[in-house]
Amino acid sequence: MDYSKKSIELHLKSRGKIEIRSKVEIKNKYDLSLAYTPGVAAVCSEIGRDKEKSFTLTNRANQVAVVSDGTAILGLGNLGPEAAMPVMEGKSIIFKEFAGIDAIPLCINSTDVEDIIKFCKLIEPSFGGINLEDISAPRCFEILERLENELSIPVFHDDQDGTAIVTLAAIINACRVTGRNLGDLHIVINGAGAAGIAIARLLIHAEVKEVVLVDTKGAIYEGRPGMNPIKQNIAEVSNRAKHHGDLQSTLAGADVFVGVSKGNIVTEAMIAGMNKDPFIFPMANPTPEIMPDLAFKAGASIVGTGRSDYPNQVNNALVFPGLFRGLLTTGIKKVTPEIKMAVAASIAHSIVPTADQLMPTAFNEDVVDNIVATITEIASREVIVPAA
Amino acid sequence: MDYSKKSIELHLKSRGKIEIRSKVEIKNKYDLSLAYTPGVAAVCSEIGRDKEKSFTLTNRANQVAVVSDGTAILGLGNLGPEAAMPVMEGKSIIFKEFAGIDAIPLCINSTDVEDIIKFCKLIEPSFGGINLEDISAPRCFEILERLENELSIPVFHDDQDGTAIVTLAAIINACRVTGRNLGDLHIVINGAGAAGIAIARLLIHAEVKEVVLVDTKGAIYEGRPGMNPIKQNIAEVSNRAKHHGDLQSTLAGADVFVGVSKGNIVTEAMIAGMNKDPFIFPMANPTPEIMPDLAFKAGASIVGTGRSDYPNQVNNALVFPGLFRGLLTTGIKKVTPEIKMAVAASIAHSIVPTADQLMPTAFNEDVVDNIVATITEIASREVIVPAA
Repeated sequence: MDYSKKSIELHLKSRGKIEIRSKVEIKNKYDLSLAYTPGVAAVCSEIGRDKEKSFTLTNRANQVAVVSDGTAILGLGNLGPEAAMPVMEGKSIIFKEFAGIDAIPLCINSTDVEDIIKFCKLIEPSFGGINLEDISAPRCFEILERLENELSIPVFHDDQDGTAIVTLAAIINACRVTGRNLGDLHIVINGAGAAGIAIARLLIHAEVKEVVLVDTKGAIYEGRPGMNPIKQNIAEVSNRAKHHGDLQSTLAGADVFVGVSKGNIVTEAMIAGMNKDPFIFPMANPTPEIMPDLAFKAGASIVGTGRSDYPNQVNNALVFPGLFRGLLTTGIKKVTPEIKMAVAASIAHSIVPTADQLMPTAFNEDVVDNIVATITEIASREVIVPAA
Repeated sequence: MDYSKKSIELHLKSRGKIEIRSKVEIKNKYDLSLAYTPGVAAVCSEIGRDKEKSFTLTNRANQVAVVSDGTAILGLGNLGPEAAMPVMEGKSIIFKEFAGIDAIPLCINSTDVEDIIKFCKLIEPSFGGINLEDISAPRCFEILERLENELSIPVFHDDQDGTAIVTLAAIINACRVTGRNLGDLHIVINGAGAAGIAIARLLIHAEVKEVVLVDTKGAIYEGRPGMNPIKQNIAEVSNRAKHHGDLQSTLAGADVFVGVSKGNIVTEAMIAGMNKDPFIFPMANPTPEIMPDLAFKAGASIVGTGRSDYPNQVNNALVFPGLFRGLLTTGIKKVTPEIKMAVAASIAHSIVPTADQLMPTAFNEDVVDNIVATITEIASREVIVPAA
């Protein structure tokens, strides 16, 4: 299927994918007098006295900024901010279609960590939350961590935690289909960028038996020379057997392969060397680490990819609409590991999974509802439980 | 009429005034495959190869950022960025209703000149133009000038040039109604902020006979001590008679009063001291410098205010939708004095004016069409005329 040509045609014809609409009628001078001057002055004054009222008197409480520097666009790499816009517009329409959220794409002209942090702090008064997108590792880790501490609205990096949450949801459902337990799994993640690190952190938090991250130099283990601080950090809590070696040797004896790296780098032999009936999630876009038919041929019991045109898409679009709907509705400011795990479980339990239909589709309306219910429940507990 | 209460009710009920809509259908997995992954990758790659294609493959060519720091909100002053949002959302819906433009309000958390310039440079890849709004003088002059030189998309500060253009349009039509000539007019402008300076500059460019700016210390004249560089500059080209004195004495012998200052500071006696049948434009919001009935009583032949609930509203909303439509359509990067004068004339000539109906309303569809035709004509000349 030639999606490329048809997609370019669609974008040319519609000249992009989003537009602004008015929520109020502007049909005559009276309408203008209320929506604009002179009436609007009273609304400004109200917010001037109490800026929290910006959440009820403007669209702020429903408005999310989708911020990118264009350095890690899909699997395409650094193509610059202009080239990131089609993805951000796509996220914007998904936010609206699935969760009614108004997401505004802002692709910016700098890759400097301080610039990106400054930018997000500057726009804070206009938004209810910030979704970082397609910002390359390792800068994205510092940016997210700093913003989580320095902003008073929630911030989320979809390429880190969106991918981590939906991956955990997929593994949960693979366990449900095959009758296995998360706590018994030995999981190998190939790719130690934004997604790989976040997946490893979340799986460790979910107490799976063993997590091993692999990068281009092989398995990441404690004490491996020349690692950046992020990798050093994850090395201290993963790969407890201190396995050294390449992807093939690291996969020997593993139950799950998670690929967030690049296309066609996993062979049938690698999968054949894993434990029996492994779960294989080659999620590189647009080309998976191994094609699903080959993975099954090599013994996989469950296969999921990042693509919408194969069965079992493991898709961030299952996460961010409901997650932000929940955050905006409850006023929760920080996406804690508890929230991430609960959201993953909500997504997983939105369907009764089978090997061929592991995940709900983005069009399953239960997904957003279940995520919102979960976050609302967490928020209510946080209010009720007194501080220790 | 209590606009305040009804406006607050409207804003509370609708929770602000704007929303994002999708321009493409997202009804099934196939739609998503074209609007989002995997199809969108080809669109990103196209723009990655040629970033000019962001103007045809994304909404950029129809998208304007409305940027404010909230320091000069209407006549209310510095209430902060959150409080500026209701005005910016109002501008956004006017942009859409009258010119089909998607304007995105971005109220930012800094009043620092360098921060605001940096911010606009950061967002440049996402927009076709920038509308600065409610940024206080004198910072706004440097910000506009720097951005005009440093950005490759058009930038416009509505409080400067929007007000200047619509004021010139009003004076043109006052001349048409009363059979006078622009070149014969002696005009006094009270208020030397963003609007006053820009109005003076444009009227001087339009070759009116005399322009005198008045601030809280009286007439601005060449060599007056303690003036900032902007005022020094305008002093060199205005008030050629070097009049010293307060507003009352400066008005003696003038033909036109333009007020961009504050409410109720012009008296009937002041107007009575002007030349016969003066034009009086007390445009302070929400309270005019003198109420229209008093101005007429004191001898005014024409009165126009900034308010929508009196006759003859002199309203920036006549300018910015058509101006940006014209800029985005033609690709013109800089709003030159020639463009400003042509746009003012286009607005004026969109109706046959009378003393009671001096200006077209914002709902007059000819206004945007005429402005766009004028800018298109200027653009075609600029392409045809070879460089000297």
